[in-house]
Amino acid sequence: MNEKTKKPRQTAPKSPQTGAKRRPRKKPAAAPAEAQVTAEMNTPAAPAKKTRSRQVKEPRKTPVRIIPLGGLNEIGKNMTVFECSNDMFILDCGLAFPDADMPGVDIVIPDFTYVERNREKVRGIVITHGHEDHIGGLAYFLKKVNVPVYATRLTIGLIEGKLREQGLFGKVQLNVVEPKKTVKMGCMAVEFIKVNHSIPDSVGMAIHTPAGVIVHTGDFKVDYSPIDGKIIDLARFGELGSRGVLALMADSTNAERAGYTHSERTVGESFDRLFKMGEGKRIIIATFSSNIHRVQQIINCAVRYGRKVAVFGRSMINVINTAIELGYLDVPDGVIIDIELMNRYENERIVLITTGSQGEPMSALTRMAMNDHKKVNITPMDFIIISATPIPGNEKYVTRVVNELMKSGAEVVYEAMYEVHVSGHACQEELKLMQALTKPKFFIPVHGEYKHLKKHATLAYQMGMPKENVIIAEIGNVIETDGTRMSVVSQVPSGRILVDGLGVGDVGSIVLRDRKHLAQDGLIIIVIGIEKSTNEIVAGPDIISRGFVYVRESEELMDEAKQLLSSTLANCSYAELREWNTLKGKMRDALSDYIYQKTKRSPMILPIIMET
Amino acid sequence: MNEKTKKPRQTAPKSPQTGAKRRPRKKPAAAPAEAQVTAEMNTPAAPAKKTRSRQVKEPRKTPVRIIPLGGLNEIGKNMTVFECSNDMFILDCGLAFPDADMPGVDIVIPDFTYVERNREKVRGIVITHGHEDHIGGLAYFLKKVNVPVYATRLTIGLIEGKLREQGLFGKVQLNVVEPKKTVKMGCMAVEFIKVNHSIPDSVGMAIHTPAGVIVHTGDFKVDYSPIDGKIIDLARFGELGSRGVLALMADSTNAERAGYTHSERTVGESFDRLFKMGEGKRIIIATFSSNIHRVQQIINCAVRYGRKVAVFGRSMINVINTAIELGYLDVPDGVIIDIELMNRYENERIVLITTGSQGEPMSALTRMAMNDHKKVNITPMDFIIISATPIPGNEKYVTRVVNELMKSGAEVVYEAMYEVHVSGHACQEELKLMQALTKPKFFIPVHGEYKHLKKHATLAYQMGMPKENVIIAEIGNVIETDGTRMSVVSQVPSGRILVDGLGVGDVGSIVLRDRKHLAQDGLIIIVIGIEKSTNEIVAGPDIISRGFVYVRESEELMDEAKQLLSSTLANCSYAELREWNTLKGKMRDALSDYIYQKTKRSPMILPIIMET
Repeated sequence: MNEKTKKPRQTAPKSPQTGAKRRPRKKPAAAPAEAQVTAEMNTPAAPAKKTRSRQVKEPRKTPVRIIPLGGLNEIGKNMTVFECSNDMFILDCGLAFPDADMPGVDIVIPDFTYVERNREKVRGIVITHGHEDHIGGLAYFLKKVNVPVYATRLTIGLIEGKLREQGLFGKVQLNVVEPKKTVKMGCMAVEFIKVNHSIPDSVGMAIHTPAGVIVHTGDFKVDYSPIDGKIIDLARFGELGSRGVLALMADSTNAERAGYTHSERTVGESFDRLFKMGEGKRIIIATFSSNIHRVQQIINCAVRYGRKVAVFGRSMINVINTAIELGYLDVPDGVIIDIELMNRYENERIVLITTGSQGEPMSALTRMAMNDHKKVNITPMDFIIISATPIPGNEKYVTRVVNELMKSGAEVVYEAMYEVHVSGHACQEELKLMQALTKPKFFIPVHGEYKHLKKHATLAYQMGMPKENVIIAEIGNVIETDGTRMSVVSQVPSGRILVDGLGVGDVGSIVLRDRKHLAQDGLIIIVIGIEKSTNEIVAGPDIISRGFVYVRESEELMDEAKQLLSSTLANCSYAELREWNTLKGKMRDALSDYIYQKTKRSPMILPIIMET
Repeated sequence: MNEKTKKPRQTAPKSPQTGAKRRPRKKPAAAPAEAQVTAEMNTPAAPAKKTRSRQVKEPRKTPVRIIPLGGLNEIGKNMTVFECSNDMFILDCGLAFPDADMPGVDIVIPDFTYVERNREKVRGIVITHGHEDHIGGLAYFLKKVNVPVYATRLTIGLIEGKLREQGLFGKVQLNVVEPKKTVKMGCMAVEFIKVNHSIPDSVGMAIHTPAGVIVHTGDFKVDYSPIDGKIIDLARFGELGSRGVLALMADSTNAERAGYTHSERTVGESFDRLFKMGEGKRIIIATFSSNIHRVQQIINCAVRYGRKVAVFGRSMINVINTAIELGYLDVPDGVIIDIELMNRYENERIVLITTGSQGEPMSALTRMAMNDHKKVNITPMDFIIISATPIPGNEKYVTRVVNELMKSGAEVVYEAMYEVHVSGHACQEELKLMQALTKPKFFIPVHGEYKHLKKHATLAYQMGMPKENVIIAEIGNVIETDGTRMSVVSQVPSGRILVDGLGVGDVGSIVLRDRKHLAQDGLIIIVIGIEKSTNEIVAGPDIISRGFVYVRESEELMDEAKQLLSSTLANCSYAELREWNTLKGKMRDALSDYIYQKTKRSPMILPIIMET
C-alpha cells in the first residue's frame, strides 16, 4: 500500500487506516442497480491504440469510469465519482445555493443514490479545498455512507467544524494529507498537488489508475506571489504531462475571461492605499470568511497602521479561530480584540472584519447597514471596504447594503472602485498553461455552467486538441476510458436534493410548484360542511384568503364570490353533492373564472368539505 | 402664450389647445391636503442674494417647488412634479419592475396622491422619451388625472400604443413637440432640448420659471456620431448656462463609470464583423425593442450582406411598425419578410431580430432557447448575438438562455465578448461636460439609487460646487427655490403602488408578507366543525397542507400532527371552545411548535372553525 498520509487526525472510532475491507460497515451492502453498470464495464472496449505503428496492439487496460454527480452545467455542488474494478472513491462533496425558483429551500446537495447503491465499493472521499461548494454536502453524504475523508490540514479543520454542527464529530475518520502525498483507493491512488485558490491549502489531484493518470485541478488559479509563499506546483503538473496524462479535468469558472487572474497580493496593496485614505476613521472590511489570506492582509495592514482588529459574523469568527489554531493566520498578540472592548479605542485605532460581503440579509454587515446591529452604529466616521465581487444573483443585495451604508454618511469602497478583490479562479491564459503543462490526451472541462464548459473546450480546440477528445459531460454521465478511448457509456441517477430545515429531499417539484403558485397570487380557501347522512350543506360556503388581496379593501369582491359559490351549490343536484371531487371541481372552476375575470389573477383555490 | 407645439396630433375629443382654464375637467377639484403646502409657499423665504455686494437686495421671486415622486433612490418609475403659484406640471410618468420581494406583482408605479389632490392645478405632462421607466405609469395616471401630454413625435407614437392597450386612445390629448420648441405651463414654460439616448427622439427640458431656469437632462448620453445624425444640443445647454441656470437635474445612472459612453455606431461596426463571422449561418439578434437605432444598424447590415429580416416578439413588432410608420426606421422595400415566408430562404440569407435580450421567461428568444418556439428551431447553423447587457437582477435569466442556446449547438455572442452593446447613459466625463455647460447654481442628481446620486454629487463637488448647493433628495421631498436658496421644505405622500393583474394598489405590505411566508414554507390548514348550540366539536380536526411537504411521503408527520391537535382540543374546557380566537391560537401554537421541532420550518398555519 502506497499510502503516505501524514498525521492521521483520526477523530473517528480508531479504526485501522483506510483499506476497504477493514472499513467498519454499518449497513449491509446493497447493489441492485449495479448489474447494468458492471455489464458495461465488461464490454470489450480496447481498440488499437493510436501510435505511429497502428499495428502494434497494447494489452487491454482495466477501464476507469468517471461519474460527475454535480458541478457540470451548474455552479456548485461539485462531486465526482471515480470507479475502477471493484473500487470507487469520491472527489469533493459540495452544496449549491438555491435559485429564485426554489423558495424556502436552504441548500441543494447532489443526489447520492448511485454511491449509496455501491456503498461497499467506496474506499474514501478526497476533498480539494474547504469551500462550501466542495464540502457543504459532506455531512449529508457521510450520514449515508460513512467512509474515511482525506484532505489537507486546513480543509480537515473546516470539515471538523461542519461535522460538529451536524452531530457527526468523532464518528467519521478524518485524515490529513499533505500536498505531494498519495492516498491509495483500492486499485487507484490519489496524489495531492498544491494549487492556488482563494482559500489556503487547496489542492488538485492526480489520479493514478490502471488506465492512466487523470488530473483534476479542483478550483485553481496561478499566483506567483501568494500570501503564504506556496506557489501552485506547476512543475509537478509538467512532470505528469511529460510522463503522459490520460485526461485533464479542469476548473472552468473563469473560462470566459481573457488574460490572467491577478495575485492576491494586489489586494493587499490596495488595502495599504485605502488604510491611508481612511486615516482618522474607523475602517470596516467585509470579505469571505474563508479567504484567510485576505484576512491576513487586513491584519498586516492593521499592524502596520497601529490599529486593533475586531471580528464580526459567526462564520468569520469560526474560520479565523480555526485558521489561528492551525497556524494559517499569523496574528501578533493583542491585535485582535474582543468586540466588547472596542469602545476603549478611538475610531481611527480600529478595523472591523466582518461577513456580509454578498449583502446576505442576516449578515453582520447588512445588520450594520440597516441600523440593526447591537454593537456597531454606522456614521460618517466609517470607511467601509467591501472586498468581494457580487456572485451572480446577489447584485441587488449588495447594492442595497451599499446604499444604506452611504445614507449613514459612511464612505464605501466596493466592486471595481479599487482593486479590493481578485478572483480565485484561473483565467484563459492560466487555463492554457494547465493544458500545455499536462498535455492531456482527453479533456473534460468541469466546474461551470454550459457556457463556461463550452468556452473552456474551445480553448482546448484552439491549442490543437481534437474535438472528439473533449467531452462536455452532464451530471450522471458515466464516462469510461480504457486509456485509448474515452466516451459516455451510460447514465446513473443524479440531480439535486433540496434541503429545507431538517428535511432532506422532502421538498420536491410539487411542493415547489405550490410554493411558487402561492407566492404569485396567494390562495383562496372555500369551506363547506356537509351532513354525512342527509348530504345536506350545513355550513358555509365560507371564504378565507391569504396573499390575494387586502380583504378589508375588497369586501365587495369577496362578498360577490361567496354569493356566486352559494348559487353554484344551490344548483347542485343531490348526486353531485355526494361526489365530493366533482363538487370541489365545480366550486374551484366557478370561483377561479370569476376571480380571473375580475382581477386577471389566478390564486390557488382550495375547496375543503367538512363531513359533520 | 408662448406655445409653439407643432402638429398637435390630437387624438382626444377636439378640445382647445392647452390653456389650463379651458381644459375639460371631469371630476371636481379636491385639495384637502393643500393647506399646509400653500402655507409653506407663503413663508417668507428670499434672503439676501449671494452677489459680490451682499448689501444689494433683489426683488423677491415667486418660489418654484420641485417634487420628485419617483426615480430617486431607485431605478425606474421616474416622475417629477414642478409647481409654481397656481400651476403645476409633471415631467415623465414611468413604471418600475418589481423586485424579488414583490412576488406576483406585475409592475410598480408612483403614488399619484399629491397630484390627484391638486388636479385643478395640473397644466399638463411632458415626457422626455419613450422608455417604460418614463412612460409606463402614464396610462394609470391619465385615468386619474386627464391632462394634455407633450412629447416628441416618436414618444407620442409609443404612448399611443400604450393608451390603446388601456382603452384610453382618443380620450387623451396628445401633442407632438419638436426639440427647441417650448410648451407653456401656466407661469412656467418647458423647452425641449435634443439629447442622445438609446431610443430616438429623446429630449432634456429647460424649465423656465419665475425663479430661474431649471434644466432636467432626462436620460442622456453624448453621442458625436449618432445613427440619425442628430447630436445632443450641447450648444443650447451652453447658451442656457451662459445666461444662468438656477438648477440642474441630471441622469445619474452611470455616475459610477469613468470615461465616456461609446457611440451607438461602434455597435454597428461590431455587427459588421459579426455578420462576416456568421457567414453561411442564420443570424439571430436579440435586443431591446425600443433601441430603434440598433435595429436600424441590424437592417443596414442585413442589406449590406444580402439577408432578409424577420421580426419576432410582440413588442419588437409593435415598435418597429411604429418606427417605420413615423419615419424613424429606414427599411428598403422587401427587406423585412413575413415570418411565415422564412422557409423560402436559406439560413445564410436570413436575420432574425427578436426580443428576449434580458432572458425574460416568456420572450421569443427564451422560447427559442427552450425549444418551445413554433417557428424557430435552434441548431448549430445559428449564429446568435445578444445585443444587450443584463440589467441587475436579470443575470441568471440571461445565462440560462445562453446555456440553452449553446446546448443546441448554436454559436452565441453575448455580454462583453464583442462590443455588441453600449449604454444609453452618460458616464462621468459626460456628466462633467453637462455641469460645465450648464454651470448650475444648484444641483439635484436624479435617476439612480443612492450610490449613484451620491457619486454624481461627488463629481459636482470635485468641480467646485459648494456642498450646500447639492441636494440628494428623496421621493416625496418638496424642494423649494426662490432663485437664491434651495432646500427641502416639506414632504408630500409618495411611494410605490403595486399593480397585479387588474388590481392597482390592492396588493400591499400585508398581502406581500403573506405571499412571501407562503413561498418560504407553504401552509397548513386546520379545519374543525363546531355545533353552534352545544359547542361540541362535530367534525375534524382535519389537516390540509400545500407547499409544505410532499404529503404522501410524510404521512407519519401529518398523522402525528392530527393526533396532537385532537388531544389539544380534548383538553380544552367548555369556555375555551366558545372563545374561538383563543381556540384558534391554541391550535396554531400547538401545531407550530410541533412542526418546527420536527422540521425546523415555519409554515403558515391557518385554523378554520366551521359553525354548523
